[in-house]
Amino acid sequence: MPIRFILVAPSHPGNVGAAARAMKTMGVEELWLVAPAQYPHPEATALASSAADLLDRATVVDTLSEAVQGCTLVLGTSARLRTALYWPVMTPREAAPKLLEAAVDGPVAVVFGTERTGLTNADFERCNALIHIPANPAYESLNLSQAVQIVAYELRCAMALPRPEARRLVPLAPAEELDRLNAHMGQVLAAVAFTDRAGGGHLERRFARIFGRAELDCHEVNMLRGLLASVLVKARGGAES
Amino acid sequence: MPIRFILVAPSHPGNVGAAARAMKTMGVEELWLVAPAQYPHPEATALASSAADLLDRATVVDTLSEAVQGCTLVLGTSARLRTALYWPVMTPREAAPKLLEAAVDGPVAVVFGTERTGLTNADFERCNALIHIPANPAYESLNLSQAVQIVAYELRCAMALPRPEARRLVPLAPAEELDRLNAHMGQVLAAVAFTDRAGGGHLERRFARIFGRAELDCHEVNMLRGLLASVLVKARGGAES
Repeated sequence: MPIRFILVAPSHPGNVGAAARAMKTMGVEELWLVAPAQYPHPEATALASSAADLLDRATVVDTLSEAVQGCTLVLGTSARLRTALYWPVMTPREAAPKLLEAAVDGPVAVVFGTERTGLTNADFERCNALIHIPANPAYESLNLSQAVQIVAYELRCAMALPRPEARRLVPLAPAEELDRLNAHMGQVLAAVAFTDRAGGGHLERRFARIFGRAELDCHEVNMLRGLLASVLVKARGGAES
Repeated sequence: MPIRFILVAPSHPGNVGAAARAMKTMGVEELWLVAPAQYPHPEATALASSAADLLDRATVVDTLSEAVQGCTLVLGTSARLRTALYWPVMTPREAAPKLLEAAVDGPVAVVFGTERTGLTNADFERCNALIHIPANPAYESLNLSQAVQIVAYELRCAMALPRPEARRLVPLAPAEELDRLNAHMGQVLAAVAFTDRAGGGHLERRFARIFGRAELDCHEVNMLRGLLASVLVKARGGAES
């Protein structure tokens, strides 16, 4: 099952070990660590128990962008819903079959934020949608490994369900193709001088969120980029207009 | 929500603290500890984080029998299915609505075994049915607090679902009434000299399992005990027969 669990900047090695164990009990085995505070670490190995193999095989990278390379579906976990306005929000139970379905075409990812503060808005920009774990409104503070456990458990439950036969004709576009689309869009916005008062990439991010939500397949990304290329030619040259 | 989470002989204070936190995040607040190795303990308090209140309010008893007093439904958690032949087995998702439904009439309980070995057969004898958490067959070793987290999460999810309107006319019999029924049955077996070669209470346990599975209400227990009393009179006196 090519499902990555990406932990962004985990600060406590014990949590990383406990997360590895939680993953392995549910059969999710691809652990990615973005800039972990300490790795490897004996406390992580101790808490991973017999899942230490998964910890040893973890992929360690510097940025979330590297971790989501190739992923056709990236879901970020969020304890609070304040930032959820820009992204579709689903429960772990709703997310699990979506992840399994998309994983048929290639890697997918679930992203977990750092212990104290969770994912940043910049991290959310890398996500297609968010997972919110139902919790006690008076005390929502799930430990990192507990959040990992619940999402992994829902994947395990969803694996046991019959899968729909219908397959996607064209694979979903991986994260780096969306990056290129968003960069291309940025050029177009500049070329046609479409700006707003907020500035600082605000409009670019709004378009990027729309593309992220839209679950674009590879053909659709190519089509959009074809359109953007045509717009650029027109905007920059414009000789024949 | 009068749902007890009973930890039987937890050996690591850290696990007790993490379990308390896991419960509180999902709004399950009644923690019972049966013969904990160490309680209170600073490591438990540390790992409970802001759920330390729940830890402080925990009820500590010596035996599982004391912990299930008054409970109309007692579900034991089991990682292995070897002992499950005698009891109905359900998933956490199936168990959650049953617990909520029974909790309308009075306290119910979920029982978690000690870290290394889980619940004993003697513990299972105190349960109406078992909960088996779906897991990776190659590595089923869930940490205690992770098992607690998953069952509590399913309760949280089930709370959000609409509840059926139909109410039970007679409340389910609490654990101590079943105890008295089982003791009564033991007297009858002796009085009518109904034994088998296994001896040592083997037959008594088999009948107790049947009564445990049957989800008997208070009237049904009274009816059964009335029958048993009649049998005893006949077997002991038998003057008029």
